This record gives sequence, C-alpha cells and structure tokens, in this order.
Amino acid sequence: MTELTAQPLTKKAFAAFGEVIELQDARQISINQGLTTRFHDLFTIDVNDAGGRPVVSVFRTAPLKLPHRVRLMERHPRGSQAFMPMDATPFLVLVATNAQPIRTADLSLFMSDGKQGINLYKNTWHHYQIVLGAPRDFIVIDRGGDGDDNLEETHLNDPVWIPASLAKSM
Amino acid sequence: MTELTAQPLTKKAFAAFGEVIELQDARQISINQGLTTRFHDLFTIDVNDAGGRPVVSVFRTAPLKLPHRVRLMERHPRGSQAFMPMDATPFLVLVATNAQPIRTADLSLFMSDGKQGINLYKNTWHHYQIVLGAPRDFIVIDRGGDGDDNLEETHLNDPVWIPASLAKSM
Repeated sequence: MTELTAQPLTKKAFAAFGEVIELQDARQISINQGLTTRFHDLFTIDVNDAGGRPVVSVFRTAPLKLPHRVRLMERHPRGSQAFMPMDATPFLVLVATNAQPIRTADLSLFMSDGKQGINLYKNTWHHYQIVLGAPRDFIVIDRGGDGDDNLEETHLNDPVWIPASLAKSM
Repeated sequence: MTELTAQPLTKKAFAAFGEVIELQDARQISINQGLTTRFHDLFTIDVNDAGGRPVVSVFRTAPLKLPHRVRLMERHPRGSQAFMPMDATPFLVLVATNAQPIRTADLSLFMSDGKQGINLYKNTWHHYQIVLGAPRDFIVIDRGGDGDDNLEETHLNDPVWIPASLAKSM
C-alpha cells in the first residue's frame, strides 16, 4: 500500500500535465484610465476538436473524505479543462502520466496554494476534483459540442491512498 | 445635470445588453461520484469573428472615486466580454443602447449582488468597470486574435454623474 505525498504546484513540475494558472509572470496591461490591471491571457483553451466550443461552468465540490483510496482516473481526449478556484483555499490535484494501466509510480499529487488554478491538457489523466474541509466553487472552462467521446476512465489496481494527514497540512 | 440610480441586475432587465451569469436557473449536473454539482454552460462566448479566440484574463480593478462624471463609453464590435466576480461584493454595470451620440436617456445602471457576473454582447456600449470600496478581482473572458478594431469609444456630452450616494447603498 502506498500513501501519496503532495508537492507544491509549480509551472515546471506540472508542465507535463497542463498549465498553472497564476498571476505572477502574466503580462500586465494597464487599462480603464489606469484603474485596472489586466493580467492577460492566462492559459490556452484547446477545445476546437471535432466541432467543440468553450463552455464555462461552475463546479461546486464537496470535500473528499480522507483517507481515500484512488480507484478511478479520467481524461478528456477532445479538450483542455481549466479550473480556477473562487475562494483562495488550497486544494489537491492528482494526475498521471499516460501509462495504461496506471501504476503507483505514474501518479503525481500537487497542492495548489488556493490562488493557483490549473488547465489540464487534452488527454491528461486526472482524478476528479479533490477539495478538503468544506465545499468549494471553481470556474471551469472546458469543451462542449458534438461527440460523446470526450471522457475516458481507467481503474487502478495498485493500492494507492491519499492519507488523512494531507488534510492537516492544508 | 443627471444623477444615475441603479436597478438590480436581472436577466430580464439586462437582456438587451448581455447575459447575467448566475447559478440559479443553470442546468445542474451531478458528477464526480456525486461530490460535484456542475452548473453547466453559464453563458455564450462569442469571439470567433475575424479569426478571434477566447482569452481568459484577470482584471484587478481599483475603486472608482465618486461622484464620477460619465464621460466615456466603449464597446467591442468583434467579441463578447464576460466578467465573473471573485469576491462576492456588489459592483455597478453601466451600459447604453446603441445610440450615437449617447444621451442620458440611453444609459442604464445596474447593481450586481456580487455573485452575479455579466457577459456583454458584442457591440454593447459600456462604461469601464466600476467597483467601489476596495480593489476587486474579476475573471474576464473576451476575444483575442487578429484585428486592432475591437475597441470603439464615444464621449458623452450630457452632464451625467454616478453620485456618491450609490456607494452607501452597496
């Protein structure tokens, strides 16, 4: 049995899986008579495959009960999927490299500082949202349109757990 | 001289100018093993004119000093522009019908409850962002791409003011 540990979410560490959405390093443009700073073009929406279009939704997610055994991972072959947190509270992101079956060593667990969002690339294996403590809202930008083939799921056989101790560090 | 008053932001009252982004009335889909409610497809991104693409930015806007004389309105002929507030604090939205020149009677001032966002249609005349009290962050989804012709501005000659009394009601 393996208990996962979380690493800080950084652009470099997350580069194989998607983009980190954060204001630092963004191009800043002063507009609106100087009253507004525009942090410009924070990530790349990639949803046009097969007649897709960008869809903006809110995900309201209840906390995951820990310890949690990781049994199921999913991916979206037709489009990117961005999550922008609304309430500045740290959350977890569990992703995997493109192995099938996914093994323990393929998994990476990240902790957002709560201001950072993520934009998963097409085809990045990921666990569904993991928030702890209380329900949280995220703005989600992903793909809508024709095609029912934008969700794949895979099951893990390895006994991998997100331990309760991770909640205490958040 | 005219002092504007604000009306509540409702879908019906705002229909000529854009969409109100709010969770009520949205299609709700239960996902992620029941842990997440997806409030699905909250507004329509309309940015594909002339090779456009959707761009996601954060606008960090300082408060407008009141009383404020309304002198300048702008519009974006190539794309919609959505504003989703990050901190649940009421803000003002000043829009106008498509008259040129814009006169006092063409203006409508709305107050969001702070959870509601807006998605301005292409070509809707609007004032730049109006927040009061403290700097606020908004997620903005608008158009990027070729063409420098996505901003028009017009000046008001009528003496129209947003009075200081509006800040007290927020």
